[in-house]
Amino acid sequence: MMDEKEFQAHLKEETARCEKVVEKWLPTPVAYERQVVEAANYSVRAGGKRLRPLILDETGRMYCGREALREPFMAAIEMIHTYSLIHDDLPAMDNDTLRRGKKTTWAVYGDGMAVIAGDGLLNFAYETALRAFDLCTPGEAGFVQRAVRTLARNAGFYGMVGGQCADLEAEMRPAGEVSDDLLQFIHLNKTAAMIRSAFQIGAILAEAPEDDVIALGKIADDVGLAFQIQDDILDVCGDAKTLGKSIGKDREEGKATYVTLHGLDGAKKKVAELTEDALHRMDQLSENSDFLRTLVESMMTRTR
Amino acid sequence: MMDEKEFQAHLKEETARCEKVVEKWLPTPVAYERQVVEAANYSVRAGGKRLRPLILDETGRMYCGREALREPFMAAIEMIHTYSLIHDDLPAMDNDTLRRGKKTTWAVYGDGMAVIAGDGLLNFAYETALRAFDLCTPGEAGFVQRAVRTLARNAGFYGMVGGQCADLEAEMRPAGEVSDDLLQFIHLNKTAAMIRSAFQIGAILAEAPEDDVIALGKIADDVGLAFQIQDDILDVCGDAKTLGKSIGKDREEGKATYVTLHGLDGAKKKVAELTEDALHRMDQLSENSDFLRTLVESMMTRTR
Repeated sequence: MMDEKEFQAHLKEETARCEKVVEKWLPTPVAYERQVVEAANYSVRAGGKRLRPLILDETGRMYCGREALREPFMAAIEMIHTYSLIHDDLPAMDNDTLRRGKKTTWAVYGDGMAVIAGDGLLNFAYETALRAFDLCTPGEAGFVQRAVRTLARNAGFYGMVGGQCADLEAEMRPAGEVSDDLLQFIHLNKTAAMIRSAFQIGAILAEAPEDDVIALGKIADDVGLAFQIQDDILDVCGDAKTLGKSIGKDREEGKATYVTLHGLDGAKKKVAELTEDALHRMDQLSENSDFLRTLVESMMTRTR
Repeated sequence: MMDEKEFQAHLKEETARCEKVVEKWLPTPVAYERQVVEAANYSVRAGGKRLRPLILDETGRMYCGREALREPFMAAIEMIHTYSLIHDDLPAMDNDTLRRGKKTTWAVYGDGMAVIAGDGLLNFAYETALRAFDLCTPGEAGFVQRAVRTLARNAGFYGMVGGQCADLEAEMRPAGEVSDDLLQFIHLNKTAAMIRSAFQIGAILAEAPEDDVIALGKIADDVGLAFQIQDDILDVCGDAKTLGKSIGKDREEGKATYVTLHGLDGAKKKVAELTEDALHRMDQLSENSDFLRTLVESMMTRTR
């Protein structure tokens, strides 16, 4: 294990690298499409932890993959994450005017422009990922192809969008009618699917052993699920000041969460189990990275 | 040239084939993503002329390409076209509740669900197009790759989405401040870009000569531009009954069109020029198809 100070220093450095890579691959406005490109770039630049490109990069590094080849995918995965936030914030969805203390895209550019900024950004994620074909050797083309397909699968109906759909439906039901099964589906798809892309694409591009790619998918599911349950736990007993957001919101809104279904102790026990499972699986991979292991642990046991 | 009766019979047959191909590649609901998949499929099944898959198919056939290889692209291009209609109809955009006499997607499923149905359908277009990699020989993989990239480029910021952005901006200006340059940009991107995909992808997958792929791109621009100007002309002097929609709408809304900028005669002259240019270019291709030539002509000189 890395000690906390060492981890934080490395995290800061790696996050800065992700920022640079994401910035490098942003679209450039050249003509009358200026405003939609600016709206999209505004959202990407509004910040965030860059967790998905970070995981993708670190997983690739763990298997000694080529940095240049994974960079378009690091940018693409952050674009997909960002487009989902632009659309989530729309009046038609969560109707949020602020995110991380900044005005949301529609609040700045109008909701029509925000709709097409999200569309354009999703589309540009594929344009960007496909540029990896320009950077690869003939022998790597099959891996790039598999990486693009993994990205697409996890972002769509059978991944993130499917999770958003289930979430919309769950919100319309009384909390008592949301089953454990539905809640798990939401978390595995809305949250874990893109984390799965991050872990697996890094490994696929680095030509990692198939067993490892499969194991990384399961680790991602553990991480995604624990990350979300931890969110629910913090909403009940977190510190509003540390979190930087109000707590108790789920209960107020009558929202079904892992905590309402299984109680606080049940939720904490589940996070501990998932964490143990993920770390055990990490130890069995053919390669290892202290940083990635510590990152996974920190995501699962976070207090903010 | 084909005679009208022969053309209509062939058109009917080919449109039916497109319907079948599009239907075959639609997503299947399997779990809690059911509603978003149903919303997306509702929109695709709501009808339309299937012009883009039709052109893609015919261009591929003209160069003796393999049918199976272009089918996922025929479906993908129609999915992208449909997602753009779902989002265009949203309250945040055009706020339309009816399209071709049927309720729009958001009017049936709610605007939140319509946002993610559009997102999912755009994403699924790439999932679908990428499946062509499963159907190709190693020697064809490079052509499939180029076809996916052509699809992506023309759908995004530097294609359809860019055109939608320019259109949103033009709508906010007084008609007198919309330049010819801006109007041309809108038509070339909002309308012609996806037609360009249709012509070029069919040819690319069939390994057509590079000169032909370039010429087909120019033909598509002519067709897209003429198609749109013809729309503006019909809004002034078309027959509401034949068109199946109200006329005079552009003038009522104070919208800048090719007709308001250049007069009715100027617009008609422009359509004639574009038609002549497109047909001349078609005659110079290394292959030819009477049906495709007649289709192009009918799109440019349509009365409805």
